[in-house]
Order: sequence, then structure tokens, then C-alpha cells
Amino acid sequence: MKSFGFEDAAPVLSWLQKNTPLVNCLTNNVSKNFVANALLAVGASPSMVEASAEISAFTLVADATVVNVGSLVDYRLRGISMAVQTAHENGKPWILDPAAVSESLFYRSSFARELLRYYPAIIRGNAAEIMFLAGEKSSSRGADSLSSSDEALRAAKLLAGDQNCVVVVSGKKDYVTNGKETFCIMGGDPKMARVTGTGCALSAIMGATACAQYDFLRAAAAACVVMKHAGEYAALNSRGLGSFASALLDGLTIDKLS
Amino acid sequence: MKSFGFEDAAPVLSWLQKNTPLVNCLTNNVSKNFVANALLAVGASPSMVEASAEISAFTLVADATVVNVGSLVDYRLRGISMAVQTAHENGKPWILDPAAVSESLFYRSSFARELLRYYPAIIRGNAAEIMFLAGEKSSSRGADSLSSSDEALRAAKLLAGDQNCVVVVSGKKDYVTNGKETFCIMGGDPKMARVTGTGCALSAIMGATACAQYDFLRAAAAACVVMKHAGEYAALNSRGLGSFASALLDGLTIDKLS
Amino acid sequence: MKSFGFEDAAPVLSWLQKNTPLVNCLTNNVSKNFVANALLAVGASPSMVEASAEISAFTLVADATVVNVGSLVDYRLRGISMAVQTAHENGKPWILDPAAVSESLFYRSSFARELLRYYPAIIRGNAAEIMFLAGEKSSSRGADSLSSSDEALRAAKLLAGDQNCVVVVSGKKDYVTNGKETFCIMGGDPKMARVTGTGCALSAIMGATACAQYDFLRAAAAACVVMKHAGEYAALNSRGLGSFASALLDGLTIDKLS
Repeated sequence: MKSFGFEDAAPVLSWLQKNTPLVNCLTNNVSKNFVANALLAVGASPSMVEASAEISAFTLVADATVVNVGSLVDYRLRGISMAVQTAHENGKPWILDPAAVSESLFYRSSFARELLRYYPAIIRGNAAEIMFLAGEKSSSRGADSLSSSDEALRAAKLLAGDQNCVVVVSGKKDYVTNGKETFCIMGGDPKMARVTGTGCALSAIMGATACAQYDFLRAAAAACVVMKHAGEYAALNSRGLGSFASALLDGLTIDKLS
Repeated sequence: MKSFGFEDAAPVLSWLQKNTPLVNCLTNNVSKNFVANALLAVGASPSMVEASAEISAFTLVADATVVNVGSLVDYRLRGISMAVQTAHENGKPWILDPAAVSESLFYRSSFARELLRYYPAIIRGNAAEIMFLAGEKSSSRGADSLSSSDEALRAAKLLAGDQNCVVVVSGKKDYVTNGKETFCIMGGDPKMARVTGTGCALSAIMGATACAQYDFLRAAAAACVVMKHAGEYAALNSRGLGSFASALLDGLTIDKLS
Repeated sequence: MKSFGFEDAAPVLSWLQKNTPLVNCLTNNVSKNFVANALLAVGASPSMVEASAEISAFTLVADATVVNVGSLVDYRLRGISMAVQTAHENGKPWILDPAAVSESLFYRSSFARELLRYYPAIIRGNAAEIMFLAGEKSSSRGADSLSSSDEALRAAKLLAGDQNCVVVVSGKKDYVTNGKETFCIMGGDPKMARVTGTGCALSAIMGATACAQYDFLRAAAAACVVMKHAGEYAALNSRGLGSFASALLDGLTIDKLS
């Protein structure tokens, strides 16, 4: 297994500096604002189209689609189905965030599994989510995994192989694998788990980096690097979880600013 | 009437430090992000499941349920009905936040009244909301009460007695009553009323503290203490309402951090 | 064309200091929290009622209604239709924010055009949105305009004349026109375009200022001045986009605080 750092992420980040990928996110209402601001910070252009009436046409305009099944409700489920089908049929990359899939959340879990037949480019979840999606026993509590990334690595590799996609297990360590090659990204800060939407934002940033090139493995790893770095920045520049969340977005701000 | 301070709240807060109650919130889309971050700050694990298809099973997994009728729409109303019924039948505590109930908002108001038959553990509102729910004449403007906590105290006691629950009137002074015993919590800062979701967050934190023990009176009062303290911290550490909101979450951060 | 500065905005801002207009916003779920906090910052009272079951009665209680078609979904569309019709029939001002209207988003775009028959007091959009609404060729990418305010000025004047309303094109320069008289507001900061909801918040603040008097031209221009000023404040008091968003709300905080 290889580590993956800032220098490895450089080509993707430099592409982001020059382009402004349009990333459409179908995500839960808890994290919409944070996700949009995270995408803007790294230099992407976010949109949040989700109505069945306009999602298919817009998916063709967007560079990538990000699907998060957190707090799923019927009207968003319909929008997601249409978006993912359109993306698949038109060769547009889409990211699956199986937020909180588990035994006790059957509705979103069975839906997340159905979506696999439209072949996401990248699947990003915590250890329990990836294990559950891969059909293994998993242990979670609401949105929190009770398993470590290490415990999920085998499941991640199997899922990546089966789906011919990149699977990311994020946590204290992030693992990024296509089943054959695996990167490990260390760093970050434990407080990241105590800001809502950090995982959703990481998935969304993968939507942006996936547009950079069609090596989704390095695209996903670059997103992990950027987020880990932002977490470290935030830990040094905050006095509690409110200023941590704000500083996390500061840390994500890639410098088109000056 | 007794005052209630940090030393009285200590057993509840110390329980929160050691446990991580899973609190499911069915709340309006304005405050979802702030509410989730407030719960994380005090050491709880938030979830925002609201779909009819998964709410009953998840309510059994969650330690408490928080219902806020702000910006109510049909699909959330259905989710709330199922959540509250499941919570009631299974002896799980649930909190009612009758956000902006009034003559001019009949839909949410009649619904909030119907919910009373499932016996919330705690009802938390501003003076006008509590007076309206108790069947008294109340005076409000949108989400703002035009009455003081003192004017609502009698109504709060009656409602608590009728419902056999704890009623909290929050405002410049917070009153927490079970109809027989009443606590008063002073402090905070007037700017708290100028950050959206502060009331919703207070109700959500009561969902967390209600898991600590089955003395809901002290659980609710402890939540008020924590929020008043955060408001004072924020007033000292902000330069306007944006940094005030951020500092409020800093002030809520109970120290699992270091 | 005239410039419009703080001294010109003074009567409106001084009215805002003394009154607390109740502004009901039917807006997308991405920006609801930011919009509510922006309204609170300038001294207004926000509400976000959108259910068909309560919107008509509440529109009569609110001083102004703000409609944003961003991330439109069916249930909000129904609420908007009823709100706008009630506002129109009862002489209450309402603001139209045609967020991201374009060829590729037909659902919201045709709806925004239908709404014109209920005569908004103010229409506020970026250059591409105003050009599209006026029936001209426009160029956009998701929520971003690829045209400048200057390119949209002619369309804005035509639209204002046709609709007998005030049209605002916001961007690097803001133009505010009733078709005959036009104000230009300079300033702000480019980072404002990289915080989600800044445009939505500007439209919402126009809902508040439109209550001050029935000269909607100066009311809209005053809102632009306040937002440009906040952007400049934020640029001086931030280290990235997270602290910029927070400082933007600080900059909007009109001093009822001390």
C-alpha cells in the first residue's frame, strides 16, 4: 500500500485551479449549505438541482453528479434515480455517498444498493457504510461507524473489484482503492467527525476532482488529501466546533482568491 | 421558584461526556445544519431521518426524538406522526418544539396540538408558543414572541400539569416547570434571538440531556444552562451576528475535544 | 446613470433600525439558513413558511414575500404560486429571484416566467438570469453568469418597463433600474460570488427594504449598498471562504446590537 500526499495531488489541484467543474449534488438538507461552500472553496461550481422535472437535462450540462442518500425522502429518490441513469448513459462520472446505510435504515440502504447497477465512478463512505454495502456485517450508530478503516479495507477492495470502480473508506485513515492498487491518506483531525457534513463535503469534492482526469483513483485520493489538510488547518485555527467548521472551509480554500 | 446553575447541571453534563446519545431530529430545513452541529458540540450524535419509509425502525434505534413543527410540509408531517407514535409506544422520550404556532399558522398549530396525545417528555417554546399551545391568548409575529417568559409562566404550569410533562418557556429568562416545581435560568445574551435556529438547537439539546436520566425537569434545565452559557461566551467572542453564531457553537463545545 | 451610496441608503436603513419587517422567504434549501441569518442581521424578522396549507394566511401577516426558484421542487412550487397570488391580490410587495433560470433548467424557468403575471415589486438576478427572463440570449453555467452586468443593462431596462417594476442586475457592478431611472452600485468583493446564498440573501434583504417605503427603486439600491459594504468588510476580516461567509454576516449586522 502506498501513501499519497500533496505532491501526488498536485496535478489534480492544478487542474482545479484552471477549470471550474460544474458539480450537481443531490444531497441531504442538513449539509447542502456546507457542501456547496466546500465546492466553491476548492474552486468548483456547485449546483443542487433535484426535481425530476429538470434533473435529466441538467445532468447533461453538469460535469459530474454527486449522490448522497442521507435523510432520503421520496422526491429526492426520484431525482437521484433519473440523474444517475442519465449520467451512466452519457458517460458522466457520478459519486455515491451511502450515508448511514445500515440494517435499521432499510429504505436508503436498499436504494443505495440498487444504484450500484448504474456504476458509480467512486463510492465514498465510512467503514461501516462500505462494509454494509459490500454485504458484510457492519456496526454503526446513526451516521457514525463503530468499525475502523482497517476493518473495512478488505470489503472496500472486494466492492471496488465487483463494481469496477474506486472505493474510499474515510476515517482516521482514508483508504482509496480500485481493488488492485490502494492508497492510504493519513492526517486530519478527530474534530472533523464532529462537524456535520464533512463526509458529504468530501464526497462532493470527489465529484470535482473526478472531472480532472479519468484516473478516478488519484482523483479520489487528491480529494482526501485536500480534506485532511483542511482538518489540520482548522485544528490550529479554532476554539471550538463552530470556529472549527468555519476554519475547515478556510482550509479548503484553494488559492484563486488573491 | 429556584434558580438552576452549572453545578446543578453537572450530573447531566458529566453523563453527556461519557455517553453519546443518538438523537433523531425532525426539524425544519432552515436550522438542520445548526441543530446537528449543536448536538455534536455538546457530545451527542445527531441524525435527521424523516422519511415515512424508515422513520419507525430508526426511532427504535435512536435514544430520543426531537420534533420541530417549523416550516412544516406534508412529507415531514407524516414522518413526525410515525416517529412520535413509535416513541410513545416504546417508552422513548421525545421533545416537542411548537415553532411559531399561532392563529395565522393553523396547519402546524393544529398538528402540534394533536401531537400532545402522544405525551412529549418536554415541550420547549417561547412565551407566545407555550401560551398558544395551552389555549391562552398569545401575541407573536412570525417566529418571535411579543410576550415575556413571565407572562407565560402560568400557562406553562397548567400545560405541564395537564400533560404530565416538563414545559420550558425560553426567552430572556428561561422557566422550566413540571407544574409543581419550577426552575429559573438567567443569563445568555439578547443576540441569541438574532441567530436563526437557537431555539431549535436548545430543543435538540434537550433531546440529548433527556437521555441522561429520567428526571426530565433537571435534564431540560441543564440544556438551558448550557445554552445560556454559550450565549454569554459568544457575546464576548464575536463582532457581529456571523461570528456570534460561530462562537455560539464554540461555547456549546463540551470538552471531549482536547 | 447615478451612483448610489450609504448616504442615499440612510433613510431606508434608519427605517429598518426602528421597524422589524416580517419577511417570508420561499427559497431553496441550500441557502435557507444563510438567508434567515442575513435578514436577522439587517434587523428584519425572517420566516420560511412554504406549505400550501398555511401559506396564504401567512402571506397576509408577512410584510413582504421573497421567492427564489433555486432547486425548485413541486411542493415549494405550489406554495410559491399561492403566496404570490395572495401577495398580488392584497397589495403586498414580493421579490422574484430567478435563480439559475436558463435553457437547461426549463421547469424553474417557465415557472419564473409565469410568475411575472403577478407583478413582483423587484426582480433581482445576475446578468444571465435577467437576460434570460427578458427573452434575450444569455450565457450561464449552473448558478453562474458568463455575462457581465453591463451586457444585461438593456434587458434589465426593458424588463422593468414591461413589468412596471424594479429590476436589479447584480454582479461586479450592481444596476438597479425602473426602466427610466438607473442607479449603479460599485464595490463589494469577488469572493462574494464564492459564498453560496449571497445572491439569495441580497434578494431577501430587498424584501426587508421594500417594506420601508413604496419607492422600490431606492429600497433595492439600499439593499445593494448594504451587501457591497458587507463584502468589503468580510474581505478585510477573513482568511478563507469559511471566515469570509461568517464575516459577511458580521458586515450585514446593522447596529441594534450594542
